[in-house]
Amino acid sequence: MTTPIRLAMIGGGRDAFIGAVHRKAAALDARFSLVAGCLSSSPEKALASGRDLGLPDARNYPTWRALLDSERARPADDRAEVVAIVTPNHTHHEIALASIEAGFHVICDKPLCHTSAQASDLAAVVARSGLVFAVTYNYSGYPMVKQARRLVRDGVLGPIRKVIVEYNQGWLASNLEASGQKQADWRTDPARSGLGGAIGDIGSHAEQLVAYVTGLELDVICADLTTFVKGRRLDDDANLLLRFKGGARGILTASQIEIGCENDLRLRVWGERGGLDWRQEDPNHLVLHALGEPERVFRRGNDYLAHEALLASRLPSGHPEAFIEAFANVYLGVAHAIRAGDSAPARSGGLGAATAPAEAPDFPSIHDGVRGVRFIEQAVLSSASERKWTPFKAP
Amino acid sequence: MTTPIRLAMIGGGRDAFIGAVHRKAAALDARFSLVAGCLSSSPEKALASGRDLGLPDARNYPTWRALLDSERARPADDRAEVVAIVTPNHTHHEIALASIEAGFHVICDKPLCHTSAQASDLAAVVARSGLVFAVTYNYSGYPMVKQARRLVRDGVLGPIRKVIVEYNQGWLASNLEASGQKQADWRTDPARSGLGGAIGDIGSHAEQLVAYVTGLELDVICADLTTFVKGRRLDDDANLLLRFKGGARGILTASQIEIGCENDLRLRVWGERGGLDWRQEDPNHLVLHALGEPERVFRRGNDYLAHEALLASRLPSGHPEAFIEAFANVYLGVAHAIRAGDSAPARSGGLGAATAPAEAPDFPSIHDGVRGVRFIEQAVLSSASERKWTPFKAP
Amino acid sequence: MTTPIRLAMIGGGRDAFIGAVHRKAAALDARFSLVAGCLSSSPEKALASGRDLGLPDARNYPTWRALLDSERARPADDRAEVVAIVTPNHTHHEIALASIEAGFHVICDKPLCHTSAQASDLAAVVARSGLVFAVTYNYSGYPMVKQARRLVRDGVLGPIRKVIVEYNQGWLASNLEASGQKQADWRTDPARSGLGGAIGDIGSHAEQLVAYVTGLELDVICADLTTFVKGRRLDDDANLLLRFKGGARGILTASQIEIGCENDLRLRVWGERGGLDWRQEDPNHLVLHALGEPERVFRRGNDYLAHEALLASRLPSGHPEAFIEAFANVYLGVAHAIRAGDSAPARSGGLGAATAPAEAPDFPSIHDGVRGVRFIEQAVLSSASERKWTPFKAP
Amino acid sequence: MTTPIRLAMIGGGRDAFIGAVHRKAAALDARFSLVAGCLSSSPEKALASGRDLGLPDARNYPTWRALLDSERARPADDRAEVVAIVTPNHTHHEIALASIEAGFHVICDKPLCHTSAQASDLAAVVARSGLVFAVTYNYSGYPMVKQARRLVRDGVLGPIRKVIVEYNQGWLASNLEASGQKQADWRTDPARSGLGGAIGDIGSHAEQLVAYVTGLELDVICADLTTFVKGRRLDDDANLLLRFKGGARGILTASQIEIGCENDLRLRVWGERGGLDWRQEDPNHLVLHALGEPERVFRRGNDYLAHEALLASRLPSGHPEAFIEAFANVYLGVAHAIRAGDSAPARSGGLGAATAPAEAPDFPSIHDGVRGVRFIEQAVLSSASERKWTPFKAP
Repeated sequence: MTTPIRLAMIGGGRDAFIGAVHRKAAALDARFSLVAGCLSSSPEKALASGRDLGLPDARNYPTWRALLDSERARPADDRAEVVAIVTPNHTHHEIALASIEAGFHVICDKPLCHTSAQASDLAAVVARSGLVFAVTYNYSGYPMVKQARRLVRDGVLGPIRKVIVEYNQGWLASNLEASGQKQADWRTDPARSGLGGAIGDIGSHAEQLVAYVTGLELDVICADLTTFVKGRRLDDDANLLLRFKGGARGILTASQIEIGCENDLRLRVWGERGGLDWRQEDPNHLVLHALGEPERVFRRGNDYLAHEALLASRLPSGHPEAFIEAFANVYLGVAHAIRAGDSAPARSGGLGAATAPAEAPDFPSIHDGVRGVRFIEQAVLSSASERKWTPFKAP
Repeated sequence: MTTPIRLAMIGGGRDAFIGAVHRKAAALDARFSLVAGCLSSSPEKALASGRDLGLPDARNYPTWRALLDSERARPADDRAEVVAIVTPNHTHHEIALASIEAGFHVICDKPLCHTSAQASDLAAVVARSGLVFAVTYNYSGYPMVKQARRLVRDGVLGPIRKVIVEYNQGWLASNLEASGQKQADWRTDPARSGLGGAIGDIGSHAEQLVAYVTGLELDVICADLTTFVKGRRLDDDANLLLRFKGGARGILTASQIEIGCENDLRLRVWGERGGLDWRQEDPNHLVLHALGEPERVFRRGNDYLAHEALLASRLPSGHPEAFIEAFANVYLGVAHAIRAGDSAPARSGGLGAATAPAEAPDFPSIHDGVRGVRFIEQAVLSSASERKWTPFKAP
Repeated sequence: MTTPIRLAMIGGGRDAFIGAVHRKAAALDARFSLVAGCLSSSPEKALASGRDLGLPDARNYPTWRALLDSERARPADDRAEVVAIVTPNHTHHEIALASIEAGFHVICDKPLCHTSAQASDLAAVVARSGLVFAVTYNYSGYPMVKQARRLVRDGVLGPIRKVIVEYNQGWLASNLEASGQKQADWRTDPARSGLGGAIGDIGSHAEQLVAYVTGLELDVICADLTTFVKGRRLDDDANLLLRFKGGARGILTASQIEIGCENDLRLRVWGERGGLDWRQEDPNHLVLHALGEPERVFRRGNDYLAHEALLASRLPSGHPEAFIEAFANVYLGVAHAIRAGDSAPARSGGLGAATAPAEAPDFPSIHDGVRGVRFIEQAVLSSASERKWTPFKAP
Repeated sequence: MTTPIRLAMIGGGRDAFIGAVHRKAAALDARFSLVAGCLSSSPEKALASGRDLGLPDARNYPTWRALLDSERARPADDRAEVVAIVTPNHTHHEIALASIEAGFHVICDKPLCHTSAQASDLAAVVARSGLVFAVTYNYSGYPMVKQARRLVRDGVLGPIRKVIVEYNQGWLASNLEASGQKQADWRTDPARSGLGGAIGDIGSHAEQLVAYVTGLELDVICADLTTFVKGRRLDDDANLLLRFKGGARGILTASQIEIGCENDLRLRVWGERGGLDWRQEDPNHLVLHALGEPERVFRRGNDYLAHEALLASRLPSGHPEAFIEAFANVYLGVAHAIRAGDSAPARSGGLGAATAPAEAPDFPSIHDGVRGVRFIEQAVLSSASERKWTPFKAP
């Protein structure tokens, strides 16, 4: 058996969406214990939210700086070990930097921060620190995404030629932010969300999914970002042509005005010998096309899957797993990285502390975070340019 | 904020399947805390399993009787409040009876017990006790199943004419029990599983789903149960014709030898004005057919859904929920029934204690359990009979 | 090149449904030429309908007897060679018998006739005649159904254990016949349709599909036929348990009151080593489940398919074929049987006469017709019986 | 009743693909009669192919010029009325021009010709002639595509914002032309196929589908055309960003190297109030998303559909129609345009001449053809350009 990892949360109080997702994901495998929090940028709301969650007063903090300072001062076997940063984007950099400098591991929402300069700076600090830093590109936590990555790595598709990645949403098809809806409000505000609207909020997930599954590196991009809803200050629709190093081509579309689409992230990849197809809204299946053969449908939980797909799975096949489990896989990976020494069966968890597994799913790192910020920046730059191709990286 | 409910678990130790599901479901909303357990019928394994989960030695019990006796003796604000019984079927009755008599609320796996006589007996004791008793017919916990029930209740389908319910599995298509696989082993053993094989293990889920969604009562049934795998001692395939009171007709099939099927529970219902279709492996969607209109697809998480479907949902639409969440809805319902007085937003939970919601999803009761046992009995009886129709209830 | 086969049609005039389907199916491959007709039981309507179709007056007959007599009297190289009988069921037997006795090949709609006695009688006459006699169980004409049959015959599924066949329709969910709708009118009239409503009209298609794909023979059946719509004179919903010789079990449901279902014929078959799944509304795909392997989806038109599936296909994969093409395969088979000597590529046809192929799709014979009539009879008998099992054949 | 229209065919002999499709489409409704042909550019093959189809020697021509000259010389009530041009692309312009000038109506395959200049020239001649000229953009012949167009026209989607059109194929993923496969051979040869590979062969279908359904006009485009297969001389993958007049944005992808894709043409359109989704491989369904409402699935053949969708349909719902029927709708439209005076029920046809309907499906005209050629030209131009946006039309 293993002691749960002591988790502190910054952000995620009343009315937040993603904070509760983090807590559920952390709870699922009984590898974490929430010991401290500063759940809002408003001290009153922070304290009230912490009380909602049963935090003891002493560790229910009004400001994130108070949290870092006080927790750091506690005995090593009592203080928070990892900080989950689930605040709006504009605060990520400052909090993450301070957290790392205070000696805490970090789990940070994406996008990592607002600018490439911030991101590189942070990455350097993290590298020096030796601490664990995860960025919650949660969609790479799905078992069948890991299976897809394995198929590509094993060469089942052959050299990759073409990628189509779509992230279709419709929830911002009208001016929801004008109604005061909290999620719409900050996501469409450049000051809090950053340079990108749809391209940042969901396009960056699409970019990371491609990189994770295919390992391809972007060479140049051509972006067309549009704001359809009157009065909106950021793009709500993004269409890109992609060229990868080595010659592969691609399309990326990320939209929040496609009515009827909910969270329709889909990745298709084709190589010289095969193709694959995965959809987030049907996450337990993965379609493989091999040249000249009938289509094959891989399903989560079956013995014919790769090790990493089985490792990231909790239930027998046909008992569907979904969003929370994929998110929880990021947490499992972080737990394992923090407590690399322990060992025990992974599926026993839930309520009650779990023993630590001998291995765990991988998780998105600060490098994904850095690349993601660059992607948003260059997409915005490309969209404003008359030149067809904008380099992904400066030479 | 509200104190988590103190949960004790009987069964569910190393190698068990459903125990971990219960723990994850209980953990998801931070409404329960695992305080005690007797996790196996083998005292050594029970204690080892409890240590895996971090149970304190004092409340990690070698026998379930020890658990009930010792917990009962603890102070009221410290002892377990509810017992989750996740043992093989043959032990449910004795443990459940003792738990209720010892004053604990109960969450019990299905089927409730082996015989109608036991079930009725138990139901009477529960009724007198005033305690909460849930039977984990977890599939009725899905939000879109609750939406289906609402559509039927609102008369959208008109008077019901026809039901087709299928529970297609294939995992027992070969003699898995001969390999020592634990799940196959006890489920195919009449001493532990009861009279029914497929009809008991999954047919009873199908029966409950029909009853839950349609409210129909069975009148007579005609069953054909078969054992296809050589050496197996219980049915692995069950096909039934159903007649309901009021004239509706139906088909129920439950099979564990249908290769390629995983956990394919599907319910279709037709009335005079419409029909509906739901599949467990695609649980976030519900299809509605209204006479003369295009098919409509309802999706979880949208504002156009009924109150009870939204209440049973945690994530925005398009962020799929699945098996664990449906299971967790049973736990949420139980939590609410035990702590009916508290109030707070339901979606805030996860890690850290949650505040109690003002209302919660409904949950399957001992009446479902009693009816389910009767269903298995009468199906077995019908299968052995030369008469076409076997009454569901004695006159 | 080959001279088109001279076709006469009985029935299928103005307002008829299936007559036009026959004509389109016959036209598709340019292997038939319509030379004569008696297109209605009403002489006036017959003649008007024939004029609609451009039949010359001399061969546009007011009665079917006139057609048979006059055509028979024409020179051998000019007279009709085959008679398509597309009249309501009650007239099939008399017309078919007379057609065979007059020396014509026959293509007859299903069900073949009203009683087993008629059917056997007719079969004996056909056998003596040496003439071609097809019964338009058109669904066995689909290429992927032929692929399914091949997979079963090749033992890919192993010995068959279980069959579920469904024929779900909803078009008779209300009293359409009361509105005078022609198709509803005769199909719900025992005098014209026969003993069976849904069981005859569509249940018999389902029975034939099972027999065609699996080769299984029915041993005993248990039927529950219901009439849901008030005032209707025949069943509109049929649910059956099936037992086959050799131990396989099955379910057959055929309904016309399932709102939202259009022509949803679906066959699933499972054996000891695999399963398959095919749906008429998605006819270009066939799903194969092999034990322990990912699901495979076979698609029409691909080289990996069996010879008979490719032979029954006209277009490249992805260019969907559908109902008419499957129907046309029955006609192609008949053409080949009549002109067995000719040879040439099959795909060249359409408008303009085609050369005859060296081989052609198989087609349903009078034996299917005889078995189908028996099936309807025994289903009706079983439904009225208190005994669970009714033998499919008298001992 | 109406005399069938006398059809002559140029191209489409032995080994051709699309010629047989034209003949089957023309045959389906019995509105055409094949009276003459020159079925290949090789005189010997032309004559042999004509004999295969049963053409009389006198009207089985060795060259297309002989066909035009001889047919023109026949009496008005005997000569061919319409010429179907089903030859490789590079010959379309010359044959079409000559056919029109000789006084024949024309049905011509797409793309219309190689250059915009040719196309405009031809269009002017057609306009002066008063003759019927159809270009077989057959996908707009599908009933549910006509329903989609109606929904857009009726404003159900509101002003259009976004279009995604995909035409995914994989049949050219390897160097099929090197094997001598006839279809691959000419389609990858610039001399016969024209400037475009995938962009011409299938991209132009995608472009036409968008224009047909939405009525949007392209403003500027940004294309990235790639040749993945070594040794291939034309693009086999095309990805485009689209900007339409009025502000709508779009993506078009057309590829022939996407393994596992067969003929996967899909159109999605979103406006301010809704979205729609249609796939050619599942052509009988159309999905409509209206803001805040459950998804609706329209199915071919139902009374709730628009008049033009019903008019383009032959079979009851659930009896799938497919590629041939959509193609036949182009022929029906042409037949009606040629014989506008006649009238009779449309569904009676097949074998035997049909009476002409009072109205018929619309069909793609030479204007679609002209626009299509321009599209290919500008896409090729854009792909070679460093400028992001290439105007669709010269100013």
